[in-house]
Amino acid sequence: MKLKFLHLALFALLPSCIMAQKKQFTLDDLLPGGKTYYQNSVPENKYLTWWGNECVMLEVDRCYVIDKKTGKESKSMFNLDDINAILKNAGKKTVSSLLYTSFPYEDKSYAMVERSNGTKYLVSFADEKKIIWTSEAGKDNEDWNSTSRNLAYTDNHNLYVQDADGKTIQVSKDGNNDIRYGESVHRDEFGIFKGTFWSPKGNLLAFYRMDQSMVSTYPQVNVTPKGTDSRCAQLVPDKYPMAGETSHKVTVGVFDIATKKTIYLDAGDPTDRYFTNVSWAPDEKTIYMIELNRDQTDGELVEYDAKTGKKIRTLFAEHDDKYFEPCAPIQFLPWDSSKFIYLSRRDGYNHIYLYNTDGKLLKQLTKGEWEVFDIIGFNKSTKSVIYSSNEASPIQKNICTVGMNGKHSVIGNSTGWHSAKLSNSGEYILDYYSSPTIARNIDVCSTKTLKSSNIFSAKDKWENFNAPKIQLGTIKAADGKTDLYYRLVLPTDFDPNKKYPAVVYVYGGPHAHNIDASIHYGVRGWDIYMAQKGYVMFCLDNRGSEHRGKDFEQATFRNLGVEEMKDQLKGVEYLKSLPYVDSSRLGVHGWSFGGYMTTSLMTTYPDVFKCGVAGGPVIDWKYYEVMYGERYMDTPQTNPEGYKKTSLLNKAGNLKGRLLVIYGGNDPTCVPQHTLTFMRACIDAGTYPDLFTYPGDGHNMFGHDRIHLHEVITRYFEDHLK
Amino acid sequence: MKLKFLHLALFALLPSCIMAQKKQFTLDDLLPGGKTYYQNSVPENKYLTWWGNECVMLEVDRCYVIDKKTGKESKSMFNLDDINAILKNAGKKTVSSLLYTSFPYEDKSYAMVERSNGTKYLVSFADEKKIIWTSEAGKDNEDWNSTSRNLAYTDNHNLYVQDADGKTIQVSKDGNNDIRYGESVHRDEFGIFKGTFWSPKGNLLAFYRMDQSMVSTYPQVNVTPKGTDSRCAQLVPDKYPMAGETSHKVTVGVFDIATKKTIYLDAGDPTDRYFTNVSWAPDEKTIYMIELNRDQTDGELVEYDAKTGKKIRTLFAEHDDKYFEPCAPIQFLPWDSSKFIYLSRRDGYNHIYLYNTDGKLLKQLTKGEWEVFDIIGFNKSTKSVIYSSNEASPIQKNICTVGMNGKHSVIGNSTGWHSAKLSNSGEYILDYYSSPTIARNIDVCSTKTLKSSNIFSAKDKWENFNAPKIQLGTIKAADGKTDLYYRLVLPTDFDPNKKYPAVVYVYGGPHAHNIDASIHYGVRGWDIYMAQKGYVMFCLDNRGSEHRGKDFEQATFRNLGVEEMKDQLKGVEYLKSLPYVDSSRLGVHGWSFGGYMTTSLMTTYPDVFKCGVAGGPVIDWKYYEVMYGERYMDTPQTNPEGYKKTSLLNKAGNLKGRLLVIYGGNDPTCVPQHTLTFMRACIDAGTYPDLFTYPGDGHNMFGHDRIHLHEVITRYFEDHLK
Repeated sequence: MKLKFLHLALFALLPSCIMAQKKQFTLDDLLPGGKTYYQNSVPENKYLTWWGNECVMLEVDRCYVIDKKTGKESKSMFNLDDINAILKNAGKKTVSSLLYTSFPYEDKSYAMVERSNGTKYLVSFADEKKIIWTSEAGKDNEDWNSTSRNLAYTDNHNLYVQDADGKTIQVSKDGNNDIRYGESVHRDEFGIFKGTFWSPKGNLLAFYRMDQSMVSTYPQVNVTPKGTDSRCAQLVPDKYPMAGETSHKVTVGVFDIATKKTIYLDAGDPTDRYFTNVSWAPDEKTIYMIELNRDQTDGELVEYDAKTGKKIRTLFAEHDDKYFEPCAPIQFLPWDSSKFIYLSRRDGYNHIYLYNTDGKLLKQLTKGEWEVFDIIGFNKSTKSVIYSSNEASPIQKNICTVGMNGKHSVIGNSTGWHSAKLSNSGEYILDYYSSPTIARNIDVCSTKTLKSSNIFSAKDKWENFNAPKIQLGTIKAADGKTDLYYRLVLPTDFDPNKKYPAVVYVYGGPHAHNIDASIHYGVRGWDIYMAQKGYVMFCLDNRGSEHRGKDFEQATFRNLGVEEMKDQLKGVEYLKSLPYVDSSRLGVHGWSFGGYMTTSLMTTYPDVFKCGVAGGPVIDWKYYEVMYGERYMDTPQTNPEGYKKTSLLNKAGNLKGRLLVIYGGNDPTCVPQHTLTFMRACIDAGTYPDLFTYPGDGHNMFGHDRIHLHEVITRYFEDHLK
Repeated sequence: MKLKFLHLALFALLPSCIMAQKKQFTLDDLLPGGKTYYQNSVPENKYLTWWGNECVMLEVDRCYVIDKKTGKESKSMFNLDDINAILKNAGKKTVSSLLYTSFPYEDKSYAMVERSNGTKYLVSFADEKKIIWTSEAGKDNEDWNSTSRNLAYTDNHNLYVQDADGKTIQVSKDGNNDIRYGESVHRDEFGIFKGTFWSPKGNLLAFYRMDQSMVSTYPQVNVTPKGTDSRCAQLVPDKYPMAGETSHKVTVGVFDIATKKTIYLDAGDPTDRYFTNVSWAPDEKTIYMIELNRDQTDGELVEYDAKTGKKIRTLFAEHDDKYFEPCAPIQFLPWDSSKFIYLSRRDGYNHIYLYNTDGKLLKQLTKGEWEVFDIIGFNKSTKSVIYSSNEASPIQKNICTVGMNGKHSVIGNSTGWHSAKLSNSGEYILDYYSSPTIARNIDVCSTKTLKSSNIFSAKDKWENFNAPKIQLGTIKAADGKTDLYYRLVLPTDFDPNKKYPAVVYVYGGPHAHNIDASIHYGVRGWDIYMAQKGYVMFCLDNRGSEHRGKDFEQATFRNLGVEEMKDQLKGVEYLKSLPYVDSSRLGVHGWSFGGYMTTSLMTTYPDVFKCGVAGGPVIDWKYYEVMYGERYMDTPQTNPEGYKKTSLLNKAGNLKGRLLVIYGGNDPTCVPQHTLTFMRACIDAGTYPDLFTYPGDGHNMFGHDRIHLHEVITRYFEDHLK
């Protein structure tokens, strides 16, 4: 889970005609966290799920089966009172909503309902009308296996299992801040987002153990301690391994519920290695993981005996001269447990490969200058893989199917930006999507016939507002050949004869994009706010960003920011060519990697932008963490020139324009040291950045703080660019 | 030593006629730390000292006796080569300057010379031409007794003595960050600035021991660690007792050099008590200190047996309903060891009292609605006390003498602002002074005849610059009766028909003043810089500030800021009455207590000032320390209304104007928690302050950072007030 470079893309606005009588936007209308955001920006939604191949509509107070063609109710199931009667009868507290109900068993009338505190009840709602299984309160890192009904969870960094009978088994005992069990490791890189992995039948639990006692402690400070003896600010120590410094050590254990014994996979010395993509063989006898060196150039898929922990074999190795980043565990074919699929970018784009359990490559199932995003699942009857990709267009995400013969097709609507929920059999998907002119549609599609039926369509709430025009286009990258997508927002009530200031919003880092074929081309709410204030808003996905293949991403290797900036300057060239853009009033804003880009642009090309706002920036990659940082930059020891050239501490003296740097006071991702050492470097060099911070906040601001933040950002441009 | 509310007053400018052809000031010219500050702002100086009653001129490369009437050389002594020949001959490193030479013995031709690393040599320069005594390197907290030639010092919070033979004696062993020996205690309040006190003949060493293990730790962070294993930011824990919380415990030991034994004064449980103003009886047999309760309302002068530590007697007690702040140790009359003088504000003003060793008050030596500042010493032959006071004018400091009959007179020049160095006999003073039109004069005065001879006069370097006019005046305080002094700086090239923005500079706290009768009325260099940029600069010493008596200071008791602001608003009223001041463009700036005042004014009277810059502010007295904070505010437990009413966290939502808050990233005095919780409160309340910080700096910025800081402050007013 890429929490670190989270940038909240916003649902956005109709490129409609100007209608002056329409409403004006407030930041609260436009940004997540705003008081009127849901009311005025988020398209209406429907909560739907699968119960086998039955499509179930989830409402707050009832659940019912719908017809997959019409979306109309076809069969009633239960309402909230029915469920709460069963709970009360068992002496349990009631639930207040059915929106998050699930149906884990296609052949049983069991609904998993959830209280707001995380308590879960598996309720037999049809025949017996009783509670089948309970977890009393929301624990950390809950992981439930529906077959065994064992529940894994963590508490204070130790791992526990609540077995099917409700008994608690403590799996680890020495967990603490340094040694952590059952939690995500390697800072959520390499596709890792959790630390427990149930065997298919739920009899064995693989889990991560992470020892970070040898890692540097970043001294975060809480200035508003509550419920403590003293009101004095408190230390909040946070382990943070910086590029080139000592990293943590991860091992993988397997706990046997029957014997209550733990073995560890015999993977050798874990120093400077990454153990990722843990997955189980269907028979539960063996376990697989991808083992990667610290340099991230060489990985192996390795199979272990789940009972003894002994290594069985290395199925195959993968190498990349720059870096290799496995993000998806292997998945066995449901109809043939001797074969699995594997995702690799080895041919330059992320594609699906079919292997057998001897490690022999049987077939490359997908191929082309486009990327597979995710494996969604399988249709067992047609023996096909369901996945998402951008084959239709670099800025689209469509749901597709590919057979074992490599024949592949788009399922349902082939425009826009889709996400799918697969039915248990894999025969149907619930297809949620938007496109530049569709706010939200929900279709039910057959993964066999590829046909879809629309069951819900939400209108664009921005139709009520005086919204600006949004344009999509491409320009050539600085390499002279690669197409880059840009999005241009014209000022509200645009007059082509006027001159407007323009602001570039930039992210620019890997694993992210800003422009896509979702509603309003993925425009950000703040862009709309600024357009309303009379700014041209521009955004360009430079080389290095996601979904465009390996070469596109790796162009930035060992010199993060350098090629990215060259591309952004191409965007600036284009902006300056527009007759209505005032070239003397250009601004730039970005957060995280985009904060790095903003500060880099302001200090590397000090005459281009008059004003910039950089949020949560990386300032020097030597202060960034090992896993992400070394992938792209190697280490300060092995790439001293790259670190030196890209360090903004060395460029602090170049600052000429007005630059506001904002950071979360307790940012655990781009630690405050980045911003603070940049301030120090600017002071020493006699340049004058501005500063703001959100005490207590992390890498991003949420809720009220997010609204406040964007008012601060806006105000800075109004002060210095308008 | 009041380090905490340090505000660097600057030497300032001639209220001269406007001469447009003269030079313009830069910040470097005007501020300490500026590259051209010494060249363009600091009046020339002479280094002089006493050798008995001989007045010695210290130059870099020679020392000579001067005639006390003419200032001309009357007798050669030695030059640098002479001293260095003696040092070389003894195999020692040479000294590079004689500017800091002293002559500890009036009857011996011994000079104490010093290397830049702190190494000291006592050199016999006339007859034997040899080194008499050496301390090899500058240690922490060095304290030398000239009689015994024992040197006390500390290393890593333990206390050591280098005896006359050069042997090292370790006095304490368990010193560490929590337990400290021989250092200043009680956060430098109550006149405490050191932690060792030699008996008159140097045979016994009284010292402080401070246990602060029970005090909260403020987590300061160093973001630029050097020479460590990791480049990751490092914790720098700092003990900081916050008002109303657990405080440290101080005891006083006495180490006997002969027996090498330590006894502790038997003063009882040190919890919530202050032991201050340690002093010795002339016979070394007894030791005195003033013992104060935590509430600072009740103190006693207590005598102890220096050999046993047993309490001998309480000489007298002193009480004040609000607070009582003893800042000066008792001093025995050199001609009568049965009597001592004592400073007290008990009659409303700080005055000198004569006591005998039974604790009987013999006489109040000085009296009147003015204050004694310091005891400088005694003239043994006339049996008089030499002291400084503002009897001549509330904004002056003159050197005076009072006999045992209470007859008192000003010595020498009775204008301006003086400081004195007393000759060994007390018969003469070196009188350094300035006045509004005198940059620096040095006179030699007889403390008997009161006559003075000028031996040096430095001209005002600002005569070369196009300097603004400076005016002094008084207005009535908000109480309608008290005169308050203000200083007004007119814009350079002032045109009375124009309208100018005006900025109030404010400090406003106790133990400080801004306006006095020194050169240019003590104007700050930044005021001059701003005047040059076209601002009217105004400064007013409100009630609560120093040198005006107890009622004047204690008007603020339990509600710091409230009365002070009312007075400042009287200043604003006056400013607005000036036809050339644009009342819609008023700004305010202050640091430390002045940062508190600035933020208070901006949030309590949000319509008065359009723009403010607050530096190193107190935001809520609950985050300030016990000693200073509780004196004026009592505790959050005993004065909840006062703390609530004066907390700017509760006023954050009132902010309307533009407010920049600046803090030292590692401020140990007004800890960063003040500024950061204010930012948090403003964010929560939906108001918009601006922020800047100086990473690694403490409560004040020095050198280059101070210049940078004032450019930041200036820029903010130029952005938002001009």
